[in-house]
Amino acid sequence: MRILFLLLSLLAGSVAAEPLPSWHAGPAKSAITEFVAAVTDPDGADFVPAAERIAVFDNDGTLWVEQPIYTQLAFALDRIQALAAEHPEWREQQPFKAALQGDKETLAKSGNEGLMQLLMASHAGMRTAEFATIAEDWIETARHPRFERLYTELVYQPQLELLEYLRENGFTTYIVSGGGVAFMRPWTERVYGIPPEQVVGSEIALEYQVQDGVPGIVRQPEIAFIDDKAGKPVGIWRRLGRRPILAFGNSDGDYQMLEWTTAAEGRRLGLLVHHDDGEREYAYDREGHIGRLDKGLDDAAAKGWTVVSMQRDWRQVFPWSPAPPPTGSSTQPPRSQQ
Amino acid sequence: MRILFLLLSLLAGSVAAEPLPSWHAGPAKSAITEFVAAVTDPDGADFVPAAERIAVFDNDGTLWVEQPIYTQLAFALDRIQALAAEHPEWREQQPFKAALQGDKETLAKSGNEGLMQLLMASHAGMRTAEFATIAEDWIETARHPRFERLYTELVYQPQLELLEYLRENGFTTYIVSGGGVAFMRPWTERVYGIPPEQVVGSEIALEYQVQDGVPGIVRQPEIAFIDDKAGKPVGIWRRLGRRPILAFGNSDGDYQMLEWTTAAEGRRLGLLVHHDDGEREYAYDREGHIGRLDKGLDDAAAKGWTVVSMQRDWRQVFPWSPAPPPTGSSTQPPRSQQ
Repeated sequence: MRILFLLLSLLAGSVAAEPLPSWHAGPAKSAITEFVAAVTDPDGADFVPAAERIAVFDNDGTLWVEQPIYTQLAFALDRIQALAAEHPEWREQQPFKAALQGDKETLAKSGNEGLMQLLMASHAGMRTAEFATIAEDWIETARHPRFERLYTELVYQPQLELLEYLRENGFTTYIVSGGGVAFMRPWTERVYGIPPEQVVGSEIALEYQVQDGVPGIVRQPEIAFIDDKAGKPVGIWRRLGRRPILAFGNSDGDYQMLEWTTAAEGRRLGLLVHHDDGEREYAYDREGHIGRLDKGLDDAAAKGWTVVSMQRDWRQVFPWSPAPPPTGSSTQPPRSQQ
Repeated sequence: MRILFLLLSLLAGSVAAEPLPSWHAGPAKSAITEFVAAVTDPDGADFVPAAERIAVFDNDGTLWVEQPIYTQLAFALDRIQALAAEHPEWREQQPFKAALQGDKETLAKSGNEGLMQLLMASHAGMRTAEFATIAEDWIETARHPRFERLYTELVYQPQLELLEYLRENGFTTYIVSGGGVAFMRPWTERVYGIPPEQVVGSEIALEYQVQDGVPGIVRQPEIAFIDDKAGKPVGIWRRLGRRPILAFGNSDGDYQMLEWTTAAEGRRLGLLVHHDDGEREYAYDREGHIGRLDKGLDDAAAKGWTVVSMQRDWRQVFPWSPAPPPTGSSTQPPRSQQ
């Protein structure tokens, strides 16, 4: 018994000593652990007080899957379907007709203006509390077309570990996404451990109204803030009045966030997820129809940013084990030996 | 020795047991302590988890003096003086000429448009970090015309105690002010214990720029958000994605914030400072040229809001003792007996 206890203690000790188990040992993992060690060492030259340990994470493609279309767009298209009965005029009116018929070509042609019409029809006109319920109900049932799982299961296990590891080291973790803040807030705490006040995103206009004596905030069909590209540093500053010390993105939409974060004096860390794993997730970068990573790849070395290869740096991509590959192609030991 | 130790323990115990020492016992203090006891009792019907214990405070007139003019306007006027040498054209151009000459009548006539010109000339055109330094330098030296003290000494001692008491009880305390967020953030942590990310206020437009290879955020001469009246609930929701459970204001500019906070289900607390103490501070309400409290006074009883009388509810107004009043008019015991 005593020996068993000792063995268990040793095991527990070694587990506790090895952070980020889903990250392969390598330059990316070292960049993270060395950075955290440096800024948390009170006797070190790079020490940063806990209150200033702000880490910002893009969401789509950085914390969860963004292919084949942004999750929020899948939500908008499902909402259009759900609302169609109340809007018979949509059967003949673009881009709604195309959305209802799943006509992707016409949808793509409708461009930004068409996208805005779909977003406003699906995201505005209701009170904030009502929209939160709609978003939550959808995220708890909708499934991804390829993985056939809830979208909240398509979050990256290595990033969940990183968020937790940073918080254990006194960081505050923020989401800074081009996605809508109101779409994310209802579930980010449950899924990422990030409470609503630590979510920064795009915003539509809001208006305070008292209806039948009941005060509330009503979502207006008008974009108020786009939290993308040069909007990301602005979105962070508006919210926080602080400049982060760590920024993690995956596309050129995150370029300015990384640039602004890492250009400050003192030790800083910029990271980019490189989607180079078509087998376990998706492979895209310079030519991506969304989540394009081009300038970021060009400049990463010169800027000192760490490019994280999904294929080489991540032992596991999702929190669940994938279905076993077809017989013969497995490179893993059989189950009984695991 | 043992008896001394016991006495000291008792003394320490009784001090710890009596929160809010600058608040006189009475209905206002009871409303606060009973509310806090109710929402923090895990076995009670009114229990609120710590993460949802959000308390919002107006700043001008609620946490510090707002008379004879808003502190931020005093700052703007001083900035105009400081910048005048670089702007010889201001000597002939209104409202700058009036500002430079201290011509209050012409200034008042220039209205909102004139005020905006003064604000933009003094608040925009520089990087955020530079503006923070300007605001901090000013607040560390400028003095109030009547009290001849730093503005940060003109904060209300009972409110400092209340902020601390709420935080000790698991609340997060936010400032939600019509004042500019960038003007407040450099000093709110030092003065109120409220860090920059917990300050909500009015905003001017911000733009991310890279100048000579150095990224930064530049303040633009354009109002982006006015955090007053119906803007306050919107400002809180944008920032937090949560609805507060306690709101404290002093003017009709806080009406909607209190209305929205206290209309929610569950136990809520709305409070208003009533400036009825011309001797120790100022006396104004329905006719105030700023900080007008009219509709709030009318509706407080029906809405269940607590009106806090500065004169009757606050034992002490400021963190410092006022100069002794002229001989004969004192109602306090002589110093030696205190």
